[in-house]
Amino acid sequence: MGRSKKSDLHGNAPDSCPVALLIIDAINDLEFPGGAGMLPRAVRMARNIAALKRRATAVGIPTVYVNDNFGRWRSDFRRIVAHCLDDDVRGRPVAELVVPDENDYFVLKPKHSGFYNTTLDLLLEYLRVETLILAGIATDVCVLFTAADAYMRDLRVIVARDCVTAVTPAAHLAALAQMRTVLKAEVTPSRSLDLGRLKRRRPRRARLGRPSRHE
Amino acid sequence: MGRSKKSDLHGNAPDSCPVALLIIDAINDLEFPGGAGMLPRAVRMARNIAALKRRATAVGIPTVYVNDNFGRWRSDFRRIVAHCLDDDVRGRPVAELVVPDENDYFVLKPKHSGFYNTTLDLLLEYLRVETLILAGIATDVCVLFTAADAYMRDLRVIVARDCVTAVTPAAHLAALAQMRTVLKAEVTPSRSLDLGRLKRRRPRRARLGRPSRHE
Amino acid sequence: MGRSKKSDLHGNAPDSCPVALLIIDAINDLEFPGGAGMLPRAVRMARNIAALKRRATAVGIPTVYVNDNFGRWRSDFRRIVAHCLDDDVRGRPVAELVVPDENDYFVLKPKHSGFYNTTLDLLLEYLRVETLILAGIATDVCVLFTAADAYMRDLRVIVARDCVTAVTPAAHLAALAQMRTVLKAEVTPSRSLDLGRLKRRRPRRARLGRPSRHE
Amino acid sequence: MGRSKKSDLHGNAPDSCPVALLIIDAINDLEFPGGAGMLPRAVRMARNIAALKRRATAVGIPTVYVNDNFGRWRSDFRRIVAHCLDDDVRGRPVAELVVPDENDYFVLKPKHSGFYNTTLDLLLEYLRVETLILAGIATDVCVLFTAADAYMRDLRVIVARDCVTAVTPAAHLAALAQMRTVLKAEVTPSRSLDLGRLKRRRPRRARLGRPSRHE
Repeated sequence: MGRSKKSDLHGNAPDSCPVALLIIDAINDLEFPGGAGMLPRAVRMARNIAALKRRATAVGIPTVYVNDNFGRWRSDFRRIVAHCLDDDVRGRPVAELVVPDENDYFVLKPKHSGFYNTTLDLLLEYLRVETLILAGIATDVCVLFTAADAYMRDLRVIVARDCVTAVTPAAHLAALAQMRTVLKAEVTPSRSLDLGRLKRRRPRRARLGRPSRHE
Repeated sequence: MGRSKKSDLHGNAPDSCPVALLIIDAINDLEFPGGAGMLPRAVRMARNIAALKRRATAVGIPTVYVNDNFGRWRSDFRRIVAHCLDDDVRGRPVAELVVPDENDYFVLKPKHSGFYNTTLDLLLEYLRVETLILAGIATDVCVLFTAADAYMRDLRVIVARDCVTAVTPAAHLAALAQMRTVLKAEVTPSRSLDLGRLKRRRPRRARLGRPSRHE
Repeated sequence: MGRSKKSDLHGNAPDSCPVALLIIDAINDLEFPGGAGMLPRAVRMARNIAALKRRATAVGIPTVYVNDNFGRWRSDFRRIVAHCLDDDVRGRPVAELVVPDENDYFVLKPKHSGFYNTTLDLLLEYLRVETLILAGIATDVCVLFTAADAYMRDLRVIVARDCVTAVTPAAHLAALAQMRTVLKAEVTPSRSLDLGRLKRRRPRRARLGRPSRHE
Repeated sequence: MGRSKKSDLHGNAPDSCPVALLIIDAINDLEFPGGAGMLPRAVRMARNIAALKRRATAVGIPTVYVNDNFGRWRSDFRRIVAHCLDDDVRGRPVAELVVPDENDYFVLKPKHSGFYNTTLDLLLEYLRVETLILAGIATDVCVLFTAADAYMRDLRVIVARDCVTAVTPAAHLAALAQMRTVLKAEVTPSRSLDLGRLKRRRPRRARLGRPSRHE
């Protein structure tokens, strides 16, 4: 209802940027089959995400946490973060490395893709984002589903390959291959990303180009 | 990621019910033009909502808060509630009357309709809801938009007429008339609602009947 | 699958324009209660739509037919048109006045709003449309629902008041009032529309501005 | 607008069935890079689809054609079929084998997934479909995207492995593997499908079960 005189609380993160970093399901208790086995890889991933996020923040690229809603429909994001940080859960060392800041955006998703029944699409339009850098868990499920939905929306997809992981290395590699070939994603080590250049890229005439035929 | 052994935290509210109470934008700082003038009506409305919600809870009907995301995209629902309860805002007496409980569901909406770019539709399917009781602010905007989207989804719409209000009484009455005639909504005083009967109503064969032609 | 060498069959209508004319459910057999009574008004409406469409075409504004799918899910638009032109149906004189051309776009809608479960949103993005001129049947149902969905998507809505009609004049007028006040629509006689100026209007920075709080 | 006395034209195909056959982009001119190379496999695929469709029709399982809209936004399905049958296009022998019948449903899709900005979801709800048998082109693109969206909607996915194909056999096999492991799809030769059993399967309590956490 109406415009609040207090609405603009949220600090100095950019409100518009042609590129955004999406961190998918990294705030995660990892309490599922295969979670123990992937923990060491998830911790390495989280370290890489943390470094990438620091660099992104330094040049003014916004971060969006896209996360499952643990506890289903009554949780909010801060409670999910608290669960992963405070309770004795397997994913705590991962969550500790990627704790969200006040200026980060977040979207709770009910299903695999970050776009399905969420506000993500609208948020990205509002931020005028045209390129997504994807990070998080798991390469072959929520990352892949989100990447496919981004591709259908004519967003450019970059996968920071050391910032995503999966239950098995084989599934991880197969999903990377698929994102490269089918979704025309750029799959690259995070340190190779020239974030300054991505940030300065001139906007396309519109996010949606002419819909073309496709296989 | 996976099923958490801690996922089922959320008490004893029903997980399935043919009817739900939707409280729209009642957690509201009312800091907009016309907000001062509607405050007395909004307080009466909030009292009626509180009474209706108590009766609903008593018979096991779930409540869903559908609310604008103040602070835009970085807030969560608990922070919105805190803003309306703790800060010196016009809507505080309204919010105090309708404070959410632990067992309530909530959905943050970016635009007028509770269904637009949110998880509401999926939540209602999950709860197997077929009838919505609508309450909140404003009758002719977010309540009406949400009602129209509910109607298109073949949900039955009940408007508790003393539990909705608008900036002007004329707009309130015109919107009630429209919901009754166009959306086939039942517009009724909240005390006339037989919640027990609504709760026991047998599910239809499916939420979506055969799509029919329409004006 | 892939780009066809034959894909670009469709003549010389503009592929991009800041304004589009939407003709809603005017291809209509009117075989429903109240249809006979509204026929004379529907014929006048169709004459006005035809004149408006001629002027729109002359300056290069595209027309989109948004229509119910008669026969439910197995019809296509040309068959619907044929049904309304060739069979002995009440709406034939209306349909004859607004027969679509080869260059018109069309969208079949399963429900009241032209945006619900259709490609309309994507088509308008592709055409870079920011303003819709609404015409068709019925002012208080499909026109109103479509207008509300357009407003939520930050499109500017113009209602050509002599190009819409409803089962009752009262419902027609109430819906016009609501579109003017709630949806901030411009409600105007079709002959007052300066189509050339609408066509030349410079695009906004993006269709979606910053989402603001709202009642 | 209203119920037409002529609305029920569409013969005797079932209006409700727990399973449906989806034929994706098989009506296809194949005029894209790689199209020539895949033609022999596409013809074999089309023969298998035709046989599967005959068996499905015999036991009352409906077929839904989900197809790109060639010519972009002004075509309809019958015109697309005519283009593929009558013009001198590479895909003609494929299209000839899978010509749609009067009783088939069809959905035009603007992008890769059959669910994205189309009425498919609503049509499947209307038909009360809970299981999809997928067929068509290409295994790793439109079939896979549609399968993923079906999985997110809690539909059971069966892939008739001899009824799908792709530009390269490797891409075909990788996509089959992914649908099996990630989407829990049943990947099986079409002749192994017990269509009568699928047809008689009792409906689940609802299409959407309780949303669970997922990788």
